[in-house]
Amino acid sequence: MAKVKVAVLGATGMIGQRFVQLLEDHPKFEIAGLYASERSEGKRLGDTLKVRDYQFKDDTMEIRIEQLDVAKIAQGCRVAFSGLPTDIAGDFETQLAQAGCAVFSNAAPHRMDADVPLLIPECNADHIDMVRKQATFKDGGFIVTNANCSTTGIAIPLKAVDKAFGLEFACVSTYQAVSGAGYPGVPSLDIMSNVVPYIKSEEEKMEGELAKILGSVKRGKFVDHPVETLANCVRVPVIDGHLESVTLRTKKDAEVEAMIKALEKFTAEPQKLKLATAPLRPIIVRREENRPQPALDVNAGEPARARGMSSVVGRVRKKGTYFKMFVLSHNTLRGGAGGSVLNAELACAKKLL
Amino acid sequence: MAKVKVAVLGATGMIGQRFVQLLEDHPKFEIAGLYASERSEGKRLGDTLKVRDYQFKDDTMEIRIEQLDVAKIAQGCRVAFSGLPTDIAGDFETQLAQAGCAVFSNAAPHRMDADVPLLIPECNADHIDMVRKQATFKDGGFIVTNANCSTTGIAIPLKAVDKAFGLEFACVSTYQAVSGAGYPGVPSLDIMSNVVPYIKSEEEKMEGELAKILGSVKRGKFVDHPVETLANCVRVPVIDGHLESVTLRTKKDAEVEAMIKALEKFTAEPQKLKLATAPLRPIIVRREENRPQPALDVNAGEPARARGMSSVVGRVRKKGTYFKMFVLSHNTLRGGAGGSVLNAELACAKKLL
Amino acid sequence: MAKVKVAVLGATGMIGQRFVQLLEDHPKFEIAGLYASERSEGKRLGDTLKVRDYQFKDDTMEIRIEQLDVAKIAQGCRVAFSGLPTDIAGDFETQLAQAGCAVFSNAAPHRMDADVPLLIPECNADHIDMVRKQATFKDGGFIVTNANCSTTGIAIPLKAVDKAFGLEFACVSTYQAVSGAGYPGVPSLDIMSNVVPYIKSEEEKMEGELAKILGSVKRGKFVDHPVETLANCVRVPVIDGHLESVTLRTKKDAEVEAMIKALEKFTAEPQKLKLATAPLRPIIVRREENRPQPALDVNAGEPARARGMSSVVGRVRKKGTYFKMFVLSHNTLRGGAGGSVLNAELACAKKLL
Amino acid sequence: MAKVKVAVLGATGMIGQRFVQLLEDHPKFEIAGLYASERSEGKRLGDTLKVRDYQFKDDTMEIRIEQLDVAKIAQGCRVAFSGLPTDIAGDFETQLAQAGCAVFSNAAPHRMDADVPLLIPECNADHIDMVRKQATFKDGGFIVTNANCSTTGIAIPLKAVDKAFGLEFACVSTYQAVSGAGYPGVPSLDIMSNVVPYIKSEEEKMEGELAKILGSVKRGKFVDHPVETLANCVRVPVIDGHLESVTLRTKKDAEVEAMIKALEKFTAEPQKLKLATAPLRPIIVRREENRPQPALDVNAGEPARARGMSSVVGRVRKKGTYFKMFVLSHNTLRGGAGGSVLNAELACAKKLL
Repeated sequence: MAKVKVAVLGATGMIGQRFVQLLEDHPKFEIAGLYASERSEGKRLGDTLKVRDYQFKDDTMEIRIEQLDVAKIAQGCRVAFSGLPTDIAGDFETQLAQAGCAVFSNAAPHRMDADVPLLIPECNADHIDMVRKQATFKDGGFIVTNANCSTTGIAIPLKAVDKAFGLEFACVSTYQAVSGAGYPGVPSLDIMSNVVPYIKSEEEKMEGELAKILGSVKRGKFVDHPVETLANCVRVPVIDGHLESVTLRTKKDAEVEAMIKALEKFTAEPQKLKLATAPLRPIIVRREENRPQPALDVNAGEPARARGMSSVVGRVRKKGTYFKMFVLSHNTLRGGAGGSVLNAELACAKKLL
Repeated sequence: MAKVKVAVLGATGMIGQRFVQLLEDHPKFEIAGLYASERSEGKRLGDTLKVRDYQFKDDTMEIRIEQLDVAKIAQGCRVAFSGLPTDIAGDFETQLAQAGCAVFSNAAPHRMDADVPLLIPECNADHIDMVRKQATFKDGGFIVTNANCSTTGIAIPLKAVDKAFGLEFACVSTYQAVSGAGYPGVPSLDIMSNVVPYIKSEEEKMEGELAKILGSVKRGKFVDHPVETLANCVRVPVIDGHLESVTLRTKKDAEVEAMIKALEKFTAEPQKLKLATAPLRPIIVRREENRPQPALDVNAGEPARARGMSSVVGRVRKKGTYFKMFVLSHNTLRGGAGGSVLNAELACAKKLL
Repeated sequence: MAKVKVAVLGATGMIGQRFVQLLEDHPKFEIAGLYASERSEGKRLGDTLKVRDYQFKDDTMEIRIEQLDVAKIAQGCRVAFSGLPTDIAGDFETQLAQAGCAVFSNAAPHRMDADVPLLIPECNADHIDMVRKQATFKDGGFIVTNANCSTTGIAIPLKAVDKAFGLEFACVSTYQAVSGAGYPGVPSLDIMSNVVPYIKSEEEKMEGELAKILGSVKRGKFVDHPVETLANCVRVPVIDGHLESVTLRTKKDAEVEAMIKALEKFTAEPQKLKLATAPLRPIIVRREENRPQPALDVNAGEPARARGMSSVVGRVRKKGTYFKMFVLSHNTLRGGAGGSVLNAELACAKKLL
Repeated sequence: MAKVKVAVLGATGMIGQRFVQLLEDHPKFEIAGLYASERSEGKRLGDTLKVRDYQFKDDTMEIRIEQLDVAKIAQGCRVAFSGLPTDIAGDFETQLAQAGCAVFSNAAPHRMDADVPLLIPECNADHIDMVRKQATFKDGGFIVTNANCSTTGIAIPLKAVDKAFGLEFACVSTYQAVSGAGYPGVPSLDIMSNVVPYIKSEEEKMEGELAKILGSVKRGKFVDHPVETLANCVRVPVIDGHLESVTLRTKKDAEVEAMIKALEKFTAEPQKLKLATAPLRPIIVRREENRPQPALDVNAGEPARARGMSSVVGRVRKKGTYFKMFVLSHNTLRGGAGGSVLNAELACAKKLL
């Protein structure tokens, strides 16, 4: 069966190249073009390397970057994976959908749109049907977004908690890697032997996106989950991997062991459908006293294709009526390109492509 | 007026040397001896340097380390500042108090003792009178402890909040510097491009110590404050300065501006008594969107002697019934040696020395 | 054909675990026991993890550490790979050889022994025959050492230079990773935002070892190469990968392009014998203006088994009669465990096992 | 006596703000204006902070940045300190000199001009007279440059060596701090747990500038010193302080102790003239086995005003006919703003202002 032809938008950036990494040998998708701004036109991908821990194939390194062009992309590609910067992503993605492309975006502008799924297949696979509400859908074009990198990591364990015990309250503090800011991103002078308790709009995104993701679709509309969320976002000198401390309260009481069990046994649509990039275990619970750690756990996830796609939970503790735990998630794989690739695989399985 | 002769215990360690830094030119105290384990006996202080950002005087560098010896210390010194490691601090400090020394300790063992003040003069100056309950007090010996470095930073702003609005609930996540683990402390392989969500006993200390510090003394006994505290403690690759995210709820409602005002205007006993190491402003509130940061704010505090003694608060926000803010505190000055020196200054002002 | 049974000594350390990594699926060798000091006896390998970028097999993680015991090791293993610390390696390795084991050691004590090959198979494969001079050889026991991690990286390109143009002079400055000091190794307080221009005995080792490795065997004796070597050794905050700046002078004049060609085309005995861990290209020359870099090049080496086994050379420049270049080498693979595994493969090919 | 009015150009940058730091309380100079590109016009200095380890006065923080304007600067200021970026520094400084300003520049464009002193007062104070050759001098305008930050640190000890023993050959490898690249400068993703063996044009600058600085003026022309210099330049994850390994050969033979003595006793014109920013000891030799280190020695220099102005030398060793040593210098103080301030102080003492 022929593979679906896909474009990668923003291919010179950190997220764009994570898309390329996940797509260069994908069972369903085939890279038909790498696109970026005019400035990079004609460069080899190999001349714009941002990803440090993955070795691209020689052929992939030779692919030439093309300039962003709606008509050209729409003509050659059924799907566009967007790692575009926020300021241009909104309009460009809309135009692509209008031109008939299925857009799977890592960018923020359309995330809270009334008819755009903010999709994490482990949490809200059913939201994908909302693309049918999009005006462009009749011609095959639609937009699906993934969540912010700091939202994604905790959304999956919080979904598991919600399902098992009912989630009421979550107070989150993040320890976010510098790769989350793209490249060049965070200047070394700002972050060496330092932490920075501010990431523009991040806390608002986390609080808003979680409500939409954990929420439901009723009568064709997204309805927010009533969980009370409080986010504190901080950049730390780590290359890859967002760690988050989560303090939560549930409707139903539970013991620590029952909480761990609920997290460990959680699987959802991607596992049922055996999506190519889905981790066998969406949530891995570590019992050691000092895990998860970015250095040790950031790439958790099996099989090989799902490396970096599991959320790793550790230090599950209870105090009074609250649970405390730490969650680690790979911010540019699960929380970036990997999230959108998984979304496209779900769309594929649902015959939307 | 003659200065009080003091000993520094654990003088080859990080905290011990912060004591020396604060004492080498102190208006009330005079270093009469530096003590450490047998291993360091006879070494020059200058041969054991741990503090990187302070230049000791040439004479101070030449002081020879002596071996820990209760009788010798008690004979030569009215006061002992203890930066001893936990495993030997408990017994040794008890013996010193029995020998008539006033011990101001940075170590943990006696902090939760029923008759030992866990003292932060801005929060609970009145607790100091509890030393009179100690069996050794009649002969001049007593023990006063400062709080854990991660407790101290937030205790002062939480006291200000409690005083103004009544504190009900606090969820704290820490970003703790490696100097908090002493020297050699955290191996570089564990913390480079990494964060570690575990510091032994730290969360329990924070939760327990805050209740005692914010609590009261009734009928000669410590009574815990009823605040519900939830701590998450994480080591980050920062040299000095503990940052903490604090999410709290108060009894009385307040607006953000009123909260900021309450924090800014807060002063207490140390400021009233004009203690030498007391910062003019115990709490400094920064209005910038990205402060406080260890790299920029760790040494906040005026006058010069109180450098590193202020708690710096920033990003005061409100969501629903919760306040969110970040607090930064110098972990080896305010949260270590500086805390104990201030305690001794209070004792001096209260005629306990 | 049955695999050779091997022991890993010092299996709880950084180098020991690199041995395990390279051996857990080796075509010629089979792990028969992991050994370390009494302190670690009975622990699972998984409880002592030091290597951060490699995922051991589940079975391997479960292997129990045994206490070092000459008789036991010699009984069960033909080969012992030693990652023992310097202070105990010398005697223990001697005893093992006396007991009939073939010892391939990463430790320093025997490196300069008059009958012990200091072996880098790309440089001096013929030195291996010197094991026949060892008193224990008649009973099958002998010792082969690999070189210091900072020596190994440059020895291979310097060999290529020597072979092509005659090496006269080399001035080397190193940028050495913290993993070179083992675990716990370098305290974070010493190396965060710092570099330390001192590594005990390292410069003497480099200068002495290079002369032996590049030297010859004449009439059954090692004869030093006359190259004049000047080493400056510095620790930098990098996890893995020693970078070295090399300024050298050759007997025969050459142009930059000829120098690059000589480096690129260099192969030796391990490539000819197709040893399992030998890199196809022992020296990879990068033409980019800013390579090699630890973050990008530390794992260079093909095929997969030889990952981290190539020396990567870059910025080959000429000024006057001098060549300047940078060399990068993986200090715990090529410069550690990988070097000794390759040595054992050579011994195997030479029918010494 | 009235202070000389000075402008700081590039005041929003790292070097510009080091100028402000050194000038805000200077005995001879008085800040009359802070200038930067149009983009920063009207901002408070406090809103553009780059320097992390110095606390500006409240008044200084309030100074408003003005747009670069030759006429305005020339009208209000006798002296301009230039921390301008390379691409605009050349022309702008020329115009300022034409308008009658004495320009003391940290920028590269004029350094190798035939009539512009490349001045380090400890090395070549007599070169300053070459400003009289400049066409603009008759109207009071002239340009003096300081050297590259990596050149400056070693130029002073090499001058001392040359004076005592005659310098023939120097092979240098650098360990350069990220602050040398200004702000935003080096992206964190490029330098965390990494070193980068390439800094654009740096090696050429070091090799060329050293010859001019150590050279002489004969018949009104600069004559290069014949020393053979080989530079290898590397960026490392350090905030402030360039460390350099230096391997050198002298004409006259010497013992290590004589070399140390020659370095320690070296003083020159700035010390004789007691210039305000001159360190009492231009070269400090450390005898410890592991010094100098950026974390411990970067701010060496007395009196307080000369903090960061001394070159710190350590590990002086001899092998064969070569000396090896390490040199540390503060790259944005001695190697940046401090160098130019010292140059202006020399000009003042020489009645050129």
